[in-house]
This record gives sequence, structure tokens and C-alpha cells, in this order.
Amino acid sequence: MSSGGDHDEQVISNKQIIFNDYVSGFPKESDMHVNVSGTIKLKVPEGSNGIVVKNLYLSCDPYLRNSMKKPVSGSVANSLKPGSPIVGYGVAKVLDSGHPNFKKGDLVWGTTGWEEYSLITDLQNFFKIQHTDVPLSYYTGILGMPGLTAYAGFYEVCSPKKGEHVFISAASGAVGQLVGQFAKLLGCYVVGSAGSKEKVDLLKNKFKFDDAFNYKEEPDLDAALKRYFPEGIDIYFENVGGRMLDAVLLNMRVHGRIAVCGMISQYNLDKPEGVHNLMHVIYKRVRIQGFTVFDYYHLYTKLLDLVLLHIAEGKIVYVEDIAEGLESGPAALIGLFSGLNVGKQVVLVSHE
Amino acid sequence: MSSGGDHDEQVISNKQIIFNDYVSGFPKESDMHVNVSGTIKLKVPEGSNGIVVKNLYLSCDPYLRNSMKKPVSGSVANSLKPGSPIVGYGVAKVLDSGHPNFKKGDLVWGTTGWEEYSLITDLQNFFKIQHTDVPLSYYTGILGMPGLTAYAGFYEVCSPKKGEHVFISAASGAVGQLVGQFAKLLGCYVVGSAGSKEKVDLLKNKFKFDDAFNYKEEPDLDAALKRYFPEGIDIYFENVGGRMLDAVLLNMRVHGRIAVCGMISQYNLDKPEGVHNLMHVIYKRVRIQGFTVFDYYHLYTKLLDLVLLHIAEGKIVYVEDIAEGLESGPAALIGLFSGLNVGKQVVLVSHE
Repeated sequence: MSSGGDHDEQVISNKQIIFNDYVSGFPKESDMHVNVSGTIKLKVPEGSNGIVVKNLYLSCDPYLRNSMKKPVSGSVANSLKPGSPIVGYGVAKVLDSGHPNFKKGDLVWGTTGWEEYSLITDLQNFFKIQHTDVPLSYYTGILGMPGLTAYAGFYEVCSPKKGEHVFISAASGAVGQLVGQFAKLLGCYVVGSAGSKEKVDLLKNKFKFDDAFNYKEEPDLDAALKRYFPEGIDIYFENVGGRMLDAVLLNMRVHGRIAVCGMISQYNLDKPEGVHNLMHVIYKRVRIQGFTVFDYYHLYTKLLDLVLLHIAEGKIVYVEDIAEGLESGPAALIGLFSGLNVGKQVVLVSHE
Repeated sequence: MSSGGDHDEQVISNKQIIFNDYVSGFPKESDMHVNVSGTIKLKVPEGSNGIVVKNLYLSCDPYLRNSMKKPVSGSVANSLKPGSPIVGYGVAKVLDSGHPNFKKGDLVWGTTGWEEYSLITDLQNFFKIQHTDVPLSYYTGILGMPGLTAYAGFYEVCSPKKGEHVFISAASGAVGQLVGQFAKLLGCYVVGSAGSKEKVDLLKNKFKFDDAFNYKEEPDLDAALKRYFPEGIDIYFENVGGRMLDAVLLNMRVHGRIAVCGMISQYNLDKPEGVHNLMHVIYKRVRIQGFTVFDYYHLYTKLLDLVLLHIAEGKIVYVEDIAEGLESGPAALIGLFSGLNVGKQVVLVSHE
């Protein structure tokens, strides 16, 4: 039910980040623009069961690059609409609601628009935020989609066992940092790769990985992996693809598992790199499992229970890279693909 | 215990197919030679728990190409020894035994030498043949290693369900023809690819696949697969690798499975082809599972129970390509890699 009286039909300015057109190759800030002339009515339309929200935090995620591609027939990916705002995960506050599960003043996370205010009509996989004793931005990361991705990817897809040897690429990112900490908590040997000294230091000192390396300083990734995993890799949490995957395949142990979460090194290539060492999948009886968070939303409360406790006890930490202001969104998003972010990339639109 | 008296120390001539040296690129008949000057004592050495056998049928299997490669450190594959006979699966008759499980006159199958007679000391995964109302050569195929590979690969690895869409490459081969028939018995829609009109006819008419195509006549494998699987592929039974795998990845359905049994198109390449479409593993949440028969020997009696019954009822048929004489072994083996064989390639060494 719509709250408020009939007089409350205020139309206000609504700044937006507009997606210009489908992208091939490396995305640029100029693939988006700021629209300052948008407006929105802060009321749910009569009869709608949607909600109107004020966006607080927006999430920059690598999968958005795939949404910028021209859709191909048969593709499962949801493409962005040229001329419309970027659509992605975010944290928001409900201003008006036509939906029985949400009311004015609720804090929520789910799929919203890159704009100051949004009218949201698809509330599937939209969550009310119950725990506010952690930073709200966490619901774009450790307590949001990337957190659930890490949780499902590690516990459900990797079939991990204590003492196993775990390798994580893009390990300081929104998902990787959490997977590594889950693996350490289980008693695994954990090594991560990242693209700068700062990130490698984070992995070793902040996230307590057993070791970490800067892939940009390793001309021979196979040799690097053999150095950190002389006995081979049981679990590879795949975030990058391409030549890293090729090197990992040479170093998998018998019955190893590769959870394929992302392949960020490939998203900007018109033709992805070839992977040559797939025969090792037979030699070592390896399982490669692609997955997305969409199949695991039913586990969200389990993630919350586990992670809120670990955060409270100081057993899990989370690093965010927060860009201030909606206008900083395009640069923050593009920065993901050159690794400018350190930790989970968030855009702060407005304080509550 | 060794049977027979102490006088029975007969040394006889033992023709052998000798592996010359490690192979790179396409293997040739001249990578092997016939040794007519070998001899063997038809008695188990004092104190040994091995057996001496007369070899009847030898099995030509694609995996032997990998055994011809120079071993690399960390490789799980067993390499052949230059200067020694080829080692592979075969059917044989026990002439003398020092092992409690085998006695003179037993028919057996397992890993033996490419020679008239062999002393076998590693009897792990060696089986006594109990059912002789089928051709003995079947124990190199449908009732041997390829049969168990098809059984485990389909029922255990593919997680098949009635009505699913199944694609099999190298579908008329030792394993593929059986996987397709298992899938049909379960009520799947089954299409196979092969490399000649004769094989395609076999698939459609003898093995009763729903459809089949000659990959050599398809310049665009993606288009071919879209023709046969307009709604996509649930299960791909992978025997070839390379560009076929790349095309299949474009056509997998959500939650599809790829059982990787072999990649025969890649075995003779110094650098395997690159596979470019692995990102579809994420988009469609595909599972790729490499496997080998070694993990599934415990299922052998289940294979026997199922397949002997189906053979008796005429519900499963099996096509073999039998080369006569040990000397025909090298040509028969090399022929696998250009697809000369029609059905399971066997070498008849001697009638019982």
C-alpha cells in the first residue's frame, strides 16, 4: 500500500549515470554519461507493488562488463539498455512502498539503478537489511552478492576439505578476499594472486593468506605456481581466466576442483584467449564448475549467520574501496578492469 | 603356486611389437617394429605370484598415444618404455599361475604386452572372464575398459535424466557407441558426430541414435550443433576436444554437464588448440568433469550385469573392427588417429 496522502506527488530532480551504447573492447568512462535533467516522482504509481528508494551505495562488479555487451541470441546474461541508467546491485532506503514486504524507512539491498532515486518493480532477490551494526556498504560486498558468491562458491562448489591447497586469483577483490578467509578458517593452505604490491601485502598481512604473489611480476605463471604449490593445487577459485587458468591446469592435483566465478582478464577481449591445457582435466580427473550467485539465494541467511558472527569476533575482515558521489561511478567501474580498486569497489551516492 | 612339474621349463619364441622411442606429432607405424627374436619361458618364475598368459586379443585405444609421449615430471600418465613391447589392455589365456586367483586355462582381461605370450606380475585390475557366451574380443571393448568407461562416464559423471539432450563426439568409437545406446535406453535425445558417412549410418541405423552428422562436412560446427540442438545440449560426452569443444560450449544449456573422456583431436599436436569459449561455463553454470576408468573399477560387476542382459535381449549391439595377426597391430593403432577404424579397434593375436 502506498503510504502518505494524495497531496504527496512531489516530482524532484534525479541525477543518473546513463549507459550510452553497447561496448566492445576495453570499456571507457565515456561509454557512460551523467544526466542531470532526470526527474522522478517519489511515490509508487497507483496499483503498483513496487518501491521507490533513495540509493545510498552502488556496487561496481566485474559482471557488469558482460552486461555492456550487445546481447547475443541464446545468451542468459542481462544486458544494459542503451540510453537508460546502469543497473546493478546497491543499498538503498525505501521512501515509498506498494509491496507488503517493504515499508517506508526500510534499508534494503538488491538490483537498483545508478541514479539518486529509483522506482523498483522487480523485487525478486531483494532483501531487507536487518543488521545495521556493520557498515551499510557491506551489503554491496561481504553481506551482499559478492559475499554470497564467495560463500556458495567455496562451500558448495569447491567441496573443500581441511588441509587442502587452495589458490585464488584476483584474490584481494570483493569475492576473493572472502574465499581466502573462509579457506583459512577451514584449515586450508591458501595462496592468492593479485596485481600490485599493495594488494599482495593486504593478502598476506590483513587477510592472513599463507602466501601471495603479484602476477604482473611473474613472466612464467606455471613456474610461479610450482613455487607456491610444489605438491599441486586441490582447489582453484577462478576469477580471471586466460593464461592464469592455463597455468593452473598444469598444476592441479588428482581430483582437483576449479570453481569458475569469473574471468575478468577476458571480458574486454573481442576474442577470448585460448586455453590449451584442458587435457589435464582428464589426466588429473579435475572438475571445472561454472556457477553464479543466482542459484544460491536460498543460502543467504546461512551466509549472514556465519559472517556476522565472524565479523563480530574479528575473525573475518573486509576491505572496501569507496568512491564518493554518483558522478564517480563511471571511473570506479572502469577502474575495476585495470585493477585500480583495492578491495571491493563501492560508490557512495548518499549517506543515509 | 606354479602348476606343472619341474621339467616344464620350455623356452619358446615370442614375437613382440616393440615401441621404438618417444613420439611427438602424429605417430607412425615406424614408431614400432616387430621383434621376431624374442623368447619366453612359459612358466612363472619360482616364488613369483604373477601369471604367464597367451595373448588372444589386444586393444587399440586412443589413450596409448599419450603413453607414447616422453613423460613429464608430475604427469600421472604411464609412459611406454622405448625398446620394450607396447603395453595395453588385452584378453589372454592363463598358461601358468603363481597367483591364487588365477589358474591354468582361465580366460582373463587386463593390462598385458603386445606379444604372443606375457609374464604379468601386476595383477591389480585384472579380471577373470566368467561369461563366454559372448565374443571374447568384447572384453577389450563393451565388457572391458571402454565399456566401463562408458558406463561410469555416462551414469556416474553425466548425471543423466530422461529426456535430456545428449551429444557424443567420436560417437561410433569403442566408448561413444555404448554411451549413445545407454542414453537412448534412458529416454534421452541423442546425436553423435563421426568422421565418415559409413560411421554416421552406423550411428543412425545400427545404434539407433536420433541423429548423427559427419563433422568433416561441417565447416561451422556451431551452426551444425544449432541445427541438431536448437534448444541446446544438456550433456556432452567429450572424446575429441579442440574446436568441437569450443563449439559445444556455445550450445550448452543452463546446468549442462560435459564428461571429458578423451580429446583425440589434440593428442598428436605439440601444442593443443586453444579453447576460447570457456566463459560460457559461467553463463550456463556448466560442469566439466574429467574422468578416467581407474576410479571406477569397483563398478565393473554392475556393468557386466547390465550389459550382458542387454546384449542377450538384443537391446545393445557392439561393432568391432578386428585386425588379424600381431603384426597388424601398429597399423591398427595408428589408424585410430586418422579414424580408419569403424567401431572398436581390436587386434586378433591368436584364437583360443
